[in-house]
Amino acid sequence: MKKLFIISLLMILSFEIFPQSISSPNGKLILTFNLNNGEPSYQLSYNEKEIVQPSKLGIELKDQNSFLNGFTISKIDTATVDEIWDPVWGEVKTIRNNYKEFAVTLIQNSEKQRRIVIRFRLFNDGLGFRYEFPEQNDLKYFTVAEEKTEFNLTGNHKAFWMPGDYDTNEYTYTTSKLSEIDASKGKNFNEISSKSFIAKNAVQTPLMLKTNDGIYINIHEAALVNYPAMNLIVDQKDFVLSSHLVPSAISGAKAFLQTPEKTPWRTVIVSDKAEEILASKLILNLNEPSKIEDVSWIKPQKYVGIWWEMHVDKSSWNYADVNNVKLKGTDWESLKPNGRHGATTENTKRYIDFAAKHGFSGVLVEGWNIGWEDWFGNWKENVFDFVTPYPDFDVEELQKYAEEKGVKLIMHHETSASATNYERRMDEAYKFMKKHGYDAVKTGYVGRIIPRGEYHDGQWMINHYNHVAEKTAEYKI
Amino acid sequence: MKKLFIISLLMILSFEIFPQSISSPNGKLILTFNLNNGEPSYQLSYNEKEIVQPSKLGIELKDQNSFLNGFTISKIDTATVDEIWDPVWGEVKTIRNNYKEFAVTLIQNSEKQRRIVIRFRLFNDGLGFRYEFPEQNDLKYFTVAEEKTEFNLTGNHKAFWMPGDYDTNEYTYTTSKLSEIDASKGKNFNEISSKSFIAKNAVQTPLMLKTNDGIYINIHEAALVNYPAMNLIVDQKDFVLSSHLVPSAISGAKAFLQTPEKTPWRTVIVSDKAEEILASKLILNLNEPSKIEDVSWIKPQKYVGIWWEMHVDKSSWNYADVNNVKLKGTDWESLKPNGRHGATTENTKRYIDFAAKHGFSGVLVEGWNIGWEDWFGNWKENVFDFVTPYPDFDVEELQKYAEEKGVKLIMHHETSASATNYERRMDEAYKFMKKHGYDAVKTGYVGRIIPRGEYHDGQWMINHYNHVAEKTAEYKI
Repeated sequence: MKKLFIISLLMILSFEIFPQSISSPNGKLILTFNLNNGEPSYQLSYNEKEIVQPSKLGIELKDQNSFLNGFTISKIDTATVDEIWDPVWGEVKTIRNNYKEFAVTLIQNSEKQRRIVIRFRLFNDGLGFRYEFPEQNDLKYFTVAEEKTEFNLTGNHKAFWMPGDYDTNEYTYTTSKLSEIDASKGKNFNEISSKSFIAKNAVQTPLMLKTNDGIYINIHEAALVNYPAMNLIVDQKDFVLSSHLVPSAISGAKAFLQTPEKTPWRTVIVSDKAEEILASKLILNLNEPSKIEDVSWIKPQKYVGIWWEMHVDKSSWNYADVNNVKLKGTDWESLKPNGRHGATTENTKRYIDFAAKHGFSGVLVEGWNIGWEDWFGNWKENVFDFVTPYPDFDVEELQKYAEEKGVKLIMHHETSASATNYERRMDEAYKFMKKHGYDAVKTGYVGRIIPRGEYHDGQWMINHYNHVAEKTAEYKI
Repeated sequence: MKKLFIISLLMILSFEIFPQSISSPNGKLILTFNLNNGEPSYQLSYNEKEIVQPSKLGIELKDQNSFLNGFTISKIDTATVDEIWDPVWGEVKTIRNNYKEFAVTLIQNSEKQRRIVIRFRLFNDGLGFRYEFPEQNDLKYFTVAEEKTEFNLTGNHKAFWMPGDYDTNEYTYTTSKLSEIDASKGKNFNEISSKSFIAKNAVQTPLMLKTNDGIYINIHEAALVNYPAMNLIVDQKDFVLSSHLVPSAISGAKAFLQTPEKTPWRTVIVSDKAEEILASKLILNLNEPSKIEDVSWIKPQKYVGIWWEMHVDKSSWNYADVNNVKLKGTDWESLKPNGRHGATTENTKRYIDFAAKHGFSGVLVEGWNIGWEDWFGNWKENVFDFVTPYPDFDVEELQKYAEEKGVKLIMHHETSASATNYERRMDEAYKFMKKHGYDAVKTGYVGRIIPRGEYHDGQWMINHYNHVAEKTAEYKI
């Protein structure tokens, strides 16, 4: 009898306080949060039209009970922010960050009072929301098995989609109704070096949609840090999109997390005009502010370079036509040149001259360093060392020549997707760059990832890319 | 008719030349190699008694036809070596390297003339043999699925065994008949932090055996480079041991190789006396000679240190009693000390005094650096940075104090098995050591390996350990 009483009390309580809504600063968007029988959900409307119908929220854990249901409300925090900030570079000088925030703290009573926060930020042009895992006694380390975020759409919208994939974002876009998506056709894109197909009905973010009413909806993410990238599984009958994270090397494990932690923001940008989606600063506003204090060395630039001529087969990245070399072991000086090597001292000077004459500040040179003979397709850990030029590429001479002409050489670090090798050699590689006048680098990750079992867009590699960004920033590269 | 003729000719030919035998320099051991219907095998006798009965040889490949059969003979090379060399350190001043070599080059005609070499070295105290994969047109990159080396024993010998395991060599030995081995009992060794059980009938090398005739046989390996460690599966009825390599993170893949390459040596040491097995220099002789030219800085030493007192619970590695810290994010200075921290400036001075007084040249200090609060069991990538002391450990003061007392501090780098984290921070860590007067380091790998999916004794980690050895040698550590 007592138990029953408590349950009905709770039900009345939750009935009283949910659903709760906030509106965007301009009032056009309305976000509604609901907790229904302990299950959180949200919905979004724009100019009084439904954009996202009631959609589930939650995280499935590995080896622990999940954050899917059994929640009660602990507290709700709201805030309004309206501020201006200056990006280091970009197409505008200042960006306005203006949103209303709704952060709900949920408790799982059955799980020793474990708690999560779901934080919503509603801008004039869209919604961002994320899961947060505060520091707490009974939740320290946990493994995400899957994120269970849904985007329950109102109909069979037109979609501008790329096949879902763990390893590449290089597909071209296809336009079709949601019901007509067939991502398996992405398999035909043979030029892409590493593909990891997910399912016929899986697509990548950003996913652009257009409703029959002419409303554009863009679903993507912001602040992707220490977490895998999100693909979307499309229910082709009911038009519910469900998050699908890129896996780790461990079966059933998608992210290894420690409190306090938070997921990336899930973003829904909404507009009547496609170009406003492109112009939106919502994602930039949701990213963390830059931690770099001195940004004087960060500059956009235009460049020409030795790279496209290889793609159109006028020259080669490799110096010799052999197909079995070892970083340690091959006598690089004694290889027989193939006569088609693009990154020669002479050719680089030609590009420097062109850049100087036509006002390009940089010259990128690919294929300057040893290892290109059999660099691709062998899942080989030590392909490049990033500091040893081919015999026909004179680093000192080109440094001098570029300086005389007022042009900067741009470094190329193709990692062949062997992130472990790159991490080992990074410091030496960046010191080499600084010594030889390079202050910009193009990195590449063509091939299957090493550590073997990881994917380009999984948590480990996301952390790697951030590690590269931090290291290069240390060197002001 | 022509075809038949050729086949019978080859058979006669192979019948004529096989089996072929060589004897050890002292004539006591006899190795016999055979090629039977294209399948290679070997056997070994000692004082005219069989030690290893005819046993198969071969390598199973992933996604390619294997090196198991279909072989014909290409050539046989023999050699005799008798030389003396000086180890950098060890229990003897000079080591004699005396063996007869028999190297057979085998060709697979069905596989575009793919070839391998099986190289045997027969010493007075035992046999070493390995597989070699020469550089060749139709074999460049390949993946070992399993090594199929057998040791076909003559009976139900007494075995001194440890459970086979991918992650630890820290079990104690059990003595039993081969038929009575039950490696699952190894599961009870609860003090071992990371165990990866293989099978009830799997054991580790070195495996020591004693026959009913009182002959000791020791099966192990030498020159373990770029290849996983070998466990042995025991056929408990027929007493055939079969190699079982530690896997990689990729299902079905045990080693990723590129020609020219070679496996480690498989060793069979034989003696009437157990102590002669221990005194054998066969494995040292089979290891590659040191590549370090200046070895003046390599010295053995005796040391005391702050480590055992933690094992017997008189003090702690960790500085504070909290269980959720982050390398970046935790304010280490503000943690509340638990009052039991072992690696304090004061305690270290006490050990330095003791070492100076009693003639120990080194003092090891574990738990000196931040991260020990929750370092274990969380499969966490960034636990330690190897350069930041706890607030109660004064690196500069201890450097001065140790120098005054003529004692060297020994560094401790517990990696928590996060090899990727250690590799990223290695250079900085070794520079920190040199700056502060440390010229020796104890490394540790307690926990589950990162890159996740790899094992302590797999190819990736074997390469990591060698990488650490090379890097420390660069710094003369």
